[in-house]
Amino acid sequence: MIEIDGARLLNDLRTLANFGKAGTGVDRIALSPLDIEARRWLVGRLAEAGLEAGLDRVGNAYGRDPTTSRAILIGSHTDTVPMGGWLDGALGVIYALEIARAFRATGGSSGVGIDVISFEDEEGTYLPCLGSRSFCNDVTDAEISAAQSKTGDRLSEALMRTKDEPAPFRLDPARHVAYLEAHIEQGPRLEAAGRRIGIVTGLVGIRRFRILAHGQADHAGTTPMDMRKDAGAALFRLASRIATTFPKIGSAETVWNIGSMTLRPGAANVVPSEAEMVFEFRDTQTATLDVLERHLLEWVAESSNAGPVTVTAQATTRIPPTAMTPAIGDAIATAAADYGEQTMSLPSGAGHDAMVLGRFIPSAMMFVPSIGGRSHDITENTSDADIVAGCRVLASAVGRVIATAAAR
Amino acid sequence: MIEIDGARLLNDLRTLANFGKAGTGVDRIALSPLDIEARRWLVGRLAEAGLEAGLDRVGNAYGRDPTTSRAILIGSHTDTVPMGGWLDGALGVIYALEIARAFRATGGSSGVGIDVISFEDEEGTYLPCLGSRSFCNDVTDAEISAAQSKTGDRLSEALMRTKDEPAPFRLDPARHVAYLEAHIEQGPRLEAAGRRIGIVTGLVGIRRFRILAHGQADHAGTTPMDMRKDAGAALFRLASRIATTFPKIGSAETVWNIGSMTLRPGAANVVPSEAEMVFEFRDTQTATLDVLERHLLEWVAESSNAGPVTVTAQATTRIPPTAMTPAIGDAIATAAADYGEQTMSLPSGAGHDAMVLGRFIPSAMMFVPSIGGRSHDITENTSDADIVAGCRVLASAVGRVIATAAAR
Repeated sequence: MIEIDGARLLNDLRTLANFGKAGTGVDRIALSPLDIEARRWLVGRLAEAGLEAGLDRVGNAYGRDPTTSRAILIGSHTDTVPMGGWLDGALGVIYALEIARAFRATGGSSGVGIDVISFEDEEGTYLPCLGSRSFCNDVTDAEISAAQSKTGDRLSEALMRTKDEPAPFRLDPARHVAYLEAHIEQGPRLEAAGRRIGIVTGLVGIRRFRILAHGQADHAGTTPMDMRKDAGAALFRLASRIATTFPKIGSAETVWNIGSMTLRPGAANVVPSEAEMVFEFRDTQTATLDVLERHLLEWVAESSNAGPVTVTAQATTRIPPTAMTPAIGDAIATAAADYGEQTMSLPSGAGHDAMVLGRFIPSAMMFVPSIGGRSHDITENTSDADIVAGCRVLASAVGRVIATAAAR
Repeated sequence: MIEIDGARLLNDLRTLANFGKAGTGVDRIALSPLDIEARRWLVGRLAEAGLEAGLDRVGNAYGRDPTTSRAILIGSHTDTVPMGGWLDGALGVIYALEIARAFRATGGSSGVGIDVISFEDEEGTYLPCLGSRSFCNDVTDAEISAAQSKTGDRLSEALMRTKDEPAPFRLDPARHVAYLEAHIEQGPRLEAAGRRIGIVTGLVGIRRFRILAHGQADHAGTTPMDMRKDAGAALFRLASRIATTFPKIGSAETVWNIGSMTLRPGAANVVPSEAEMVFEFRDTQTATLDVLERHLLEWVAESSNAGPVTVTAQATTRIPPTAMTPAIGDAIATAAADYGEQTMSLPSGAGHDAMVLGRFIPSAMMFVPSIGGRSHDITENTSDADIVAGCRVLASAVGRVIATAAAR
């Protein structure tokens, strides 16, 4: 039984939130001086807990149980988006710290310990999931050389701040039995359902398209409707087909979004000659994504064939779904039931480090509720009671996973 | 019979096009040094034709028949949009010069002469129809003081270039029997129908709305479809209703346009919290405009009532339709028939100085074809044969209007 200390957990979370504090939120972007400072603080806390702890050259903070040859890896990330929330990935990292600390305090070891990690730049200031990809030896030097932020800052420049640290820590499949990551939900579903514990069935795949329509700019007063080549109208028709048909052909979990739309030249009295929209859809099943994409591309082709406007779709993002390991999810559910908590199974609509780890070792994610579904914003929050309850459930689940692993 | 000289007409048009020549087009924005220079050249040509000619303080170039107490006023404007066409309003002004010159050469006067005018800033670099509104005493000093260009240049500053000219020329209803304006069509209808002469039934009224939707920014991966407040989707539904229903409730001449659309924050993975579009519709009948507006505002109200997104519409432009005088249109049709030309009656979907003059004196407009419907672009053109044919028809029509006026 790993007995966590709720007050110590909350205290560590609040201490971490002081690095980059911004009102009720935190601004601590990857590899910034504040991010590095927070990671050094974390390394200190991990060492106090009895782990062999350090920072590596890409900024990953890692604490290794020195008493065991096998371990459950628990963690998430402590970098944030600009003006982000105080919990987000920090929650999962401090859960890991607290659970490892409580576990070490039990003294007992069955030969399977707990390692803790905070991955660098999950948020993609420079390169999304840089830390977990580096940990899994899944990123090339060329990618790192090429990566830069939206404002043009180079990753290689930012990494000068950690250049004196040791070579990257790596995943060791012989050691790392499983990966567990807790995170805030970043959505409204747990709160709406009145549940405290979410068990992630899988991380959605994402397909994103840049859709372009090319017509002709004409005077919107002097050109009759039937003589126009209206690029905007072509994309509005496409948007209408998506809204009508996606609910019928997608799964219950499918989500989609038209996040941007631009009409050019953009004048009130000029028929748009060019229109551009960014459209994405997400689902946990590749088969569903394939059906949606096939329909989308058919409609795009029909738009071009039916009228005087040319419409093209260009895939800009293609992230495959990542399944989570059901047995670990079951361990979380059993642990939750022990605390009288009903769980909710749901996909993760957002990306996480577990998306990378899940390709290499058995992995699972647990969510706690986000108040109002808020995320990536200084208004993000989770009640103290939910934070503590989540950590107790995760600790209990980790105990079960260790027991199962030790028995093998 | 006013016998125009086609070669002289084309020569004057080409000479005028040299002021601000830009490739195949002209860049001669209102009150620029080139625009003033072109107007001084025009004043010289009008004086050579025997008119009392001058420039006034707002830039209007006016030539007055000194031999008559009544006159038909003919003209248009010689300012252009940036990188505009070589004809546009210049066509109507040089038609007026040529017709007045040919008329003066006949020597004969029935007591009704021909006055010629080029109005300043019809294109609205500073203030749309500044010249015709000044001529009709329909603009206030406060409007002139406040007016500035899109780039922040003040009209009052630009008017320093004409500050030493005489006080504004004014419409004199006792003198000015009627106003006739020729212009390129700026649309594709005459060309598509194979007609050379368009008779304008009226200038459309314009109603323009800024439509705003206010929802909530949510993560497009983690927020289920039924829990979103998607401002973009609300405007796409409105666009779809417009596309479906406007063709049924408008007239055969109604045109409409969604010229701009913006989604905010505009990220692929964020549900739009704000969406904004600019929507306008045009028709020659106030009753039709009223029906369209009533439906639009109903849909906007329903959008807000039906869902979690608030939609509002704000009228930004409201220009009433202007009827043209049928008797003068008939004179153009008769003149055209004499030359074997079949005419086409059509509304003007764009604004013109005749929109201002038509509120004060009997007015008419005649169109000649625009190749490919091109306008406000350096590719704008009309064949030489169409240019000359149009001037012959207008000259003949002017002769008829003079005869009718003289008989009263």
